Amino acid sequence: MQPFPAAGYDKGISIFSPDGRLFQVEYAREAVKRGTTSLGVKSSEGIVLVVDKRPTSTLVEPKSIEKIFQIDEHIGAATSGLVADARNLIEKARLESQINKITYNEPIPVEMLAKKICDLKQMYTQHGGVRPFGSALIIGGVNDTGTRLFETDPSGALIEYKATAIGAGRAIAMEVFEKNYNADIKLSEATELALDAIYEATDGKTTKESVEIAVVEEKNRKYRQLTENEIEDLVEELLIRKSKEEEEEEE
Amino acid sequence: MQPFPAAGYDKGISIFSPDGRLFQVEYAREAVKRGTTSLGVKSSEGIVLVVDKRPTSTLVEPKSIEKIFQIDEHIGAATSGLVADARNLIEKARLESQINKITYNEPIPVEMLAKKICDLKQMYTQHGGVRPFGSALIIGGVNDTGTRLFETDPSGALIEYKATAIGAGRAIAMEVFEKNYNADIKLSEATELALDAIYEATDGKTTKESVEIAVVEEKNRKYRQLTENEIEDLVEELLIRKSKEEEEEEE
Amino acid sequence: MQPFPAAGYDKGISIFSPDGRLFQVEYAREAVKRGTTSLGVKSSEGIVLVVDKRPTSTLVEPKSIEKIFQIDEHIGAATSGLVADARNLIEKARLESQINKITYNEPIPVEMLAKKICDLKQMYTQHGGVRPFGSALIIGGVNDTGTRLFETDPSGALIEYKATAIGAGRAIAMEVFEKNYNADIKLSEATELALDAIYEATDGKTTKESVEIAVVEEKNRKYRQLTENEIEDLVEELLIRKSKEEEEEEE
Amino acid sequence: MQPFPAAGYDKGISIFSPDGRLFQVEYAREAVKRGTTSLGVKSSEGIVLVVDKRPTSTLVEPKSIEKIFQIDEHIGAATSGLVADARNLIEKARLESQINKITYNEPIPVEMLAKKICDLKQMYTQHGGVRPFGSALIIGGVNDTGTRLFETDPSGALIEYKATAIGAGRAIAMEVFEKNYNADIKLSEATELALDAIYEATDGKTTKESVEIAVVEEKNRKYRQLTENEIEDLVEELLIRKSKEEEEEEE
Amino acid sequence: MQPFPAAGYDKGISIFSPDGRLFQVEYAREAVKRGTTSLGVKSSEGIVLVVDKRPTSTLVEPKSIEKIFQIDEHIGAATSGLVADARNLIEKARLESQINKITYNEPIPVEMLAKKICDLKQMYTQHGGVRPFGSALIIGGVNDTGTRLFETDPSGALIEYKATAIGAGRAIAMEVFEKNYNADIKLSEATELALDAIYEATDGKTTKESVEIAVVEEKNRKYRQLTENEIEDLVEELLIRKSKEEEEEEE
Amino acid sequence: MQPFPAAGYDKGISIFSPDGRLFQVEYAREAVKRGTTSLGVKSSEGIVLVVDKRPTSTLVEPKSIEKIFQIDEHIGAATSGLVADARNLIEKARLESQINKITYNEPIPVEMLAKKICDLKQMYTQHGGVRPFGSALIIGGVNDTGTRLFETDPSGALIEYKATAIGAGRAIAMEVFEKNYNADIKLSEATELALDAIYEATDGKTTKESVEIAVVEEKNRKYRQLTENEIEDLVEELLIRKSKEEEEEEE
Amino acid sequence: MQPFPAAGYDKGISIFSPDGRLFQVEYAREAVKRGTTSLGVKSSEGIVLVVDKRPTSTLVEPKSIEKIFQIDEHIGAATSGLVADARNLIEKARLESQINKITYNEPIPVEMLAKKICDLKQMYTQHGGVRPFGSALIIGGVNDTGTRLFETDPSGALIEYKATAIGAGRAIAMEVFEKNYNADIKLSEATELALDAIYEATDGKTTKESVEIAVVEEKNRKYRQLTENEIEDLVEELLIRKSKEEEEEEE
Repeated sequence: MQPFPAAGYDKGISIFSPDGRLFQVEYAREAVKRGTTSLGVKSSEGIVLVVDKRPTSTLVEPKSIEKIFQIDEHIGAATSGLVADARNLIEKARLESQINKITYNEPIPVEMLAKKICDLKQMYTQHGGVRPFGSALIIGGVNDTGTRLFETDPSGALIEYKATAIGAGRAIAMEVFEKNYNADIKLSEATELALDAIYEATDGKTTKESVEIAVVEEKNRKYRQLTENEIEDLVEELLIRKSKEEEEEEE
Repeated sequence: MQPFPAAGYDKGISIFSPDGRLFQVEYAREAVKRGTTSLGVKSSEGIVLVVDKRPTSTLVEPKSIEKIFQIDEHIGAATSGLVADARNLIEKARLESQINKITYNEPIPVEMLAKKICDLKQMYTQHGGVRPFGSALIIGGVNDTGTRLFETDPSGALIEYKATAIGAGRAIAMEVFEKNYNADIKLSEATELALDAIYEATDGKTTKESVEIAVVEEKNRKYRQLTENEIEDLVEELLIRKSKEEEEEEE
Repeated sequence: MQPFPAAGYDKGISIFSPDGRLFQVEYAREAVKRGTTSLGVKSSEGIVLVVDKRPTSTLVEPKSIEKIFQIDEHIGAATSGLVADARNLIEKARLESQINKITYNEPIPVEMLAKKICDLKQMYTQHGGVRPFGSALIIGGVNDTGTRLFETDPSGALIEYKATAIGAGRAIAMEVFEKNYNADIKLSEATELALDAIYEATDGKTTKESVEIAVVEEKNRKYRQLTENEIEDLVEELLIRKSKEEEEEEE
Repeated sequence: MQPFPAAGYDKGISIFSPDGRLFQVEYAREAVKRGTTSLGVKSSEGIVLVVDKRPTSTLVEPKSIEKIFQIDEHIGAATSGLVADARNLIEKARLESQINKITYNEPIPVEMLAKKICDLKQMYTQHGGVRPFGSALIIGGVNDTGTRLFETDPSGALIEYKATAIGAGRAIAMEVFEKNYNADIKLSEATELALDAIYEATDGKTTKESVEIAVVEEKNRKYRQLTENEIEDLVEELLIRKSKEEEEEEE
Repeated sequence: MQPFPAAGYDKGISIFSPDGRLFQVEYAREAVKRGTTSLGVKSSEGIVLVVDKRPTSTLVEPKSIEKIFQIDEHIGAATSGLVADARNLIEKARLESQINKITYNEPIPVEMLAKKICDLKQMYTQHGGVRPFGSALIIGGVNDTGTRLFETDPSGALIEYKATAIGAGRAIAMEVFEKNYNADIKLSEATELALDAIYEATDGKTTKESVEIAVVEEKNRKYRQLTENEIEDLVEELLIRKSKEEEEEEE
Repeated sequence: MQPFPAAGYDKGISIFSPDGRLFQVEYAREAVKRGTTSLGVKSSEGIVLVVDKRPTSTLVEPKSIEKIFQIDEHIGAATSGLVADARNLIEKARLESQINKITYNEPIPVEMLAKKICDLKQMYTQHGGVRPFGSALIIGGVNDTGTRLFETDPSGALIEYKATAIGAGRAIAMEVFEKNYNADIKLSEATELALDAIYEATDGKTTKESVEIAVVEEKNRKYRQLTENEIEDLVEELLIRKSKEEEEEEE
Repeated sequence: MQPFPAAGYDKGISIFSPDGRLFQVEYAREAVKRGTTSLGVKSSEGIVLVVDKRPTSTLVEPKSIEKIFQIDEHIGAATSGLVADARNLIEKARLESQINKITYNEPIPVEMLAKKICDLKQMYTQHGGVRPFGSALIIGGVNDTGTRLFETDPSGALIEYKATAIGAGRAIAMEVFEKNYNADIKLSEATELALDAIYEATDGKTTKESVEIAVVEEKNRKYRQLTENEIEDLVEELLIRKSKEEEEEEE
């Protein structure tokens, strides 16, 4: 990945390499790439966030693997990378959200919230004595400017997506999205697409326990995590769909 | 454990290695692995915490080996790793607990307390001039959302478990749990299971002096350390059980 | 580019090399050179800013690739380099602009704003514990002293231009400007020139989705981003013009 | 002592080695091991502290070799390691003790005092820019929970002992204690045992000038340093006892 | 330039080399030597400052190349070296000047202003965490003690000159001054001398666009930048004078 | 002096070497060993301090070589090592002394003063960003607990002596003291003994100009520097005594 | 000058080498040795300060080469070494002097002022993040304790002299003083002696422009710089004296 040796430029915090790169930021991105896959899809009716949370042990309480978070009534986030870093960012996001509500008496716009998180991240890439955050976030929500879906990386860069993925399965999931995404899809179709993507990105290891799904619907602008029953139904459909596809392929 | 040499990335505090790892955090985890075994089990009636505290000398007052702590009326913790770091974290946990009681006039939720400890730990992994805490904690208690059992590691990650173990005997204890744990067990069964696990994890070196046991019961939401007599009876039963098992195996 | 080896002078922040260079600043300039091309052209009727924002994926919302920003009613900026650094600078510019309006009850002069940004940048090259900003800005606007167009680099140097470019395509774009720029051109001609330059600098990969255009007109001193329709028309004309040119060249 | 080379992990302050050790803390322990021997023994009637203070020159005023200190009316301490570090800790202990008296109008519990010293020590192992304290302390006293005897090391760990020793002669003295200690001994027997231990730990070089002895008695909860006459009598008895023992051994 | 290798003494900020040199200061002087040529000449009627500001591109607005600055009504400065550093120093000089006016109700003496700039520069050579300023300044003005002309370098040293030059052409310009300077010259003669010097120092590349000229006259104590017409006339005369000289030399 | 190589442990400030030593403190002791010889002797009538102050040039004002200082009415000090460090410590001692007088309305006890100096020295061995003091002090005086004589070294250790010496001649002077010191000596005998020691420690190079002598007498508790006449008489007697001794030895 | 290699002890600020030296201070002394020669001589009627200030160019205003300074009405100073450091120290000295006048309503004693400067210098040798001052000062003046002449070096050491010299010519000048100085000389003789010394120290390159002379007379306790005429006369006499001496030598 590095055409010429890093030679020390990657050890000091917040310094440039001769070709203008910030190695600490690039290494923090590696921490994200080692994380589980999380994704978000935007539809004409709202956004859906899906995360892969296969527990490492049956003794783990699956609901404690927090990779999907409510930030405000109308905003949710899916994370990948260092979990403690992500939690830290989510708490700051919730605080910013509440401050906005109190100050302006209205919900914080999704984009403004995403930018505040990115500003914090950028600061941790420019000052000494700290390291960048080792987490990426997909932030999605609905407000007056419609349904919005953002992705932030450890550098503090911010990009709005129609559908995106972070973590180990990003490349595979993005391929699925690029092939099948369509801006006019309904929320239910977006959920199906997201599940297809997580299925591919996790080598087909998707079960009803291994995914968590949240949506923010355009009509009520409310974040809601799907119930276990809803997820069970969706995963069942997914598996039927996938086994059919495979049959078709075999034919 | 390290496929390619750490090459200095592990000497600076809070910097990433090229593959996105934080070596100081991983080394702090090693400090935990060198610690004695502590464990916690959740039952339908409350949680039980058990620690191995075999003293290094007969001159040591066994009760001074603090590996199990009351944090609040309804929360306890078992620790492993650097003992001074653990004590420091426990004191901060107690303070947070009291602040919550004074501010909201109600006991702090177990999860909120666990998160506050994790936030502190995370901060010590991201800023220069400090090292991560070299301690893991099992935090258990009962509150409005039921019986809860959390584990935190030096990175500040937080996972909720049905049953878990930290320290040198973690692998063996987890194996015992995975084989025998059952979500419907009573507290007395959970205690037996925990003692079985500590027995295996310490190579059968469990005596009535070498363990300390605490429970938080669902019915009264009170932390209580078992008396010497109670422990004596439990260990006696354990040893009978184990000698029977061995007899059976021999047959 | 470096006649004798940097030998460590480029690792410490804010120190001089034996020949009086600040390597960290030069490396930050490399970060700008790795960026996309942005440009600005001054005309007798106002300024035009054009940026290349070809998204890396069709899933990206093109409007979220922010490389062109409104700073105040009468000032805009086009950036290249690290996007998070640029956003940080833009926010500070907006704040300075508002402070000026509140304090003096009049719009901030373009030059004063540009200088404040440069002072901030300079500070990040002289003090330890921070790195220089990895972004260049083209700042353009209209005020009592007429139409102004400035460029700042990571060192905090400030130069006023008739037409300028930053990022990967700077050299090619500047060549286009030097050949064809004329101080008396109208704003529409300046826009055409800018599009010609971006076309050359991006190897002819200009489409209606890949550019964003903003103008500040002398007559009303208002920043305005062109609509999709306006851009579509301009790019269509550009492509016709270019295909004619090529035909002529072939003849 | 170090199976694989320390390789720089021991030079930075407060960082972990790959196997989870804090070398600076371990090296500070070496500073304690280079110190003179100090010990404490708990009896049913109170505690006794004994230190070896053989002066290096006849010109030294023996009473100025401070290795045994009164902290409060009811608490004393014996130290080993860097003497200036020890004095610093003792002063902080005295201050904590007075603060407690003023705040709560009652003597500070021995354990609370010991913990406060340990918290301070722990802090010096986790933050940069300082080194750990190069001193161990044996803290003994009497309060409502009875006679207490604690030992702290440079890591800030705290253990309660029946009888313990620090410094160069620790191993030999502990052996004496483990062979002869009995929880029911009177204070006079504890003093004899302590003198036996110091005699062995100093290769029989105990004279009436070379030891200092302090007791805190259960009946009055008062710290008291023995007078020169008392020490003279005790050492005389010790030497008679020891010469008898040797005669017996020879027989 | 360095008889024995710098061997690391030049990497830490503000430390001495074995032979008592401050390498960072010497390297900052190199940054000045890489700058364009600026000069100042004192006459019986006031001072004149001349700078070489040949733009690197025809697209640059020549007036934005700031190398000559008004500091106060009666003081001007010409700079060479890092332009952002120079602007920073000029702003501080202007502030000091205003503070003096407000505090004492009279214009700041030229020497006092020059010393304040030098004190600031010295501070940046003695404290860690900053680098020296990479700029030299020629500060000239008229006050109660007459016409004054100072030069400061990155070390913070201050010397008063009759005529001086900084930047790449310093050596050549100083030679011209030493040959032709005369303390009784009028301001017009001083301006001619300065233009001769800049002509020689820039290899005869002086045009009416490439120089900027400012004067502070003794009679009114006012700083004034010459108009384009004035400069045009002066450069025309210069070129005629120079071509005559060359003819004469040829003869 | 160092059985195994220091290997970097001596370069960082305030860190331990693997065998528990603080090299910076040991090197500061070397600075003391390079200093001139200073000594103090306690008698039944008070203390005497003697320093060797042979000037390096006849142009030096001998009285300006300050190695003996009055700290308070009843306390004096003799120093060796870095003179600027010593003066700094003496000033702090004087301040502490005055603060005590103002606060408690009575002279500061000699021991308390000595401890305060040592606490300051200890602090400079434990915190980063400073170096230890390169000075040792002999502090002597008279107060309610009688005549006291203390020695402090760079580590902040404090020892009370009957007679002691610091600096290059310490070993020789201590030998003289150990052979001839007697606790019942009068002040005049103590002075003779001190002069004998300085004579031996300086290879017999003692003249009336080369020594300075101060006493604090028990009867009036006043510090007093001897006059030139007094010193002249004492040195004359010394030289007669010494030449007799040598004659006797020769016989 | 360094018998064994500095091996890194000279790179960190304010740390001791194994043999107890502070290299940064010794290197700062080298900066002084590279400076021009300055000297001071004490007479029965006051002190005289003489400095060598040969300008490097005829364009320099000789009066701007500040090597001799008035600190207060009754105190002057001559400096050598880094000129910006010296100016910084002189300003602090002037401030201390004014503070004393305001606080105690009387002129500051010469010795107290010299000590304050030395305390500042010492501080810059003991704390990290700064370098020692690269300047030596000769401070002379008249107060109630008579005529005083002090020399301070970069370590902060302070010595009072009858006559002394700093800078490149120190060794030669001191030789002249040691041969010819006499405590009973008048001020005029002291001035002659000082001029002889500077003549020798500068290889006979003394002219009326190259020296600056200041005196503080005992009778009026006023600092006064000699006028150009006075200096012209003194140098003329010097040169006559010297040419005679040479003639005599030749004979």
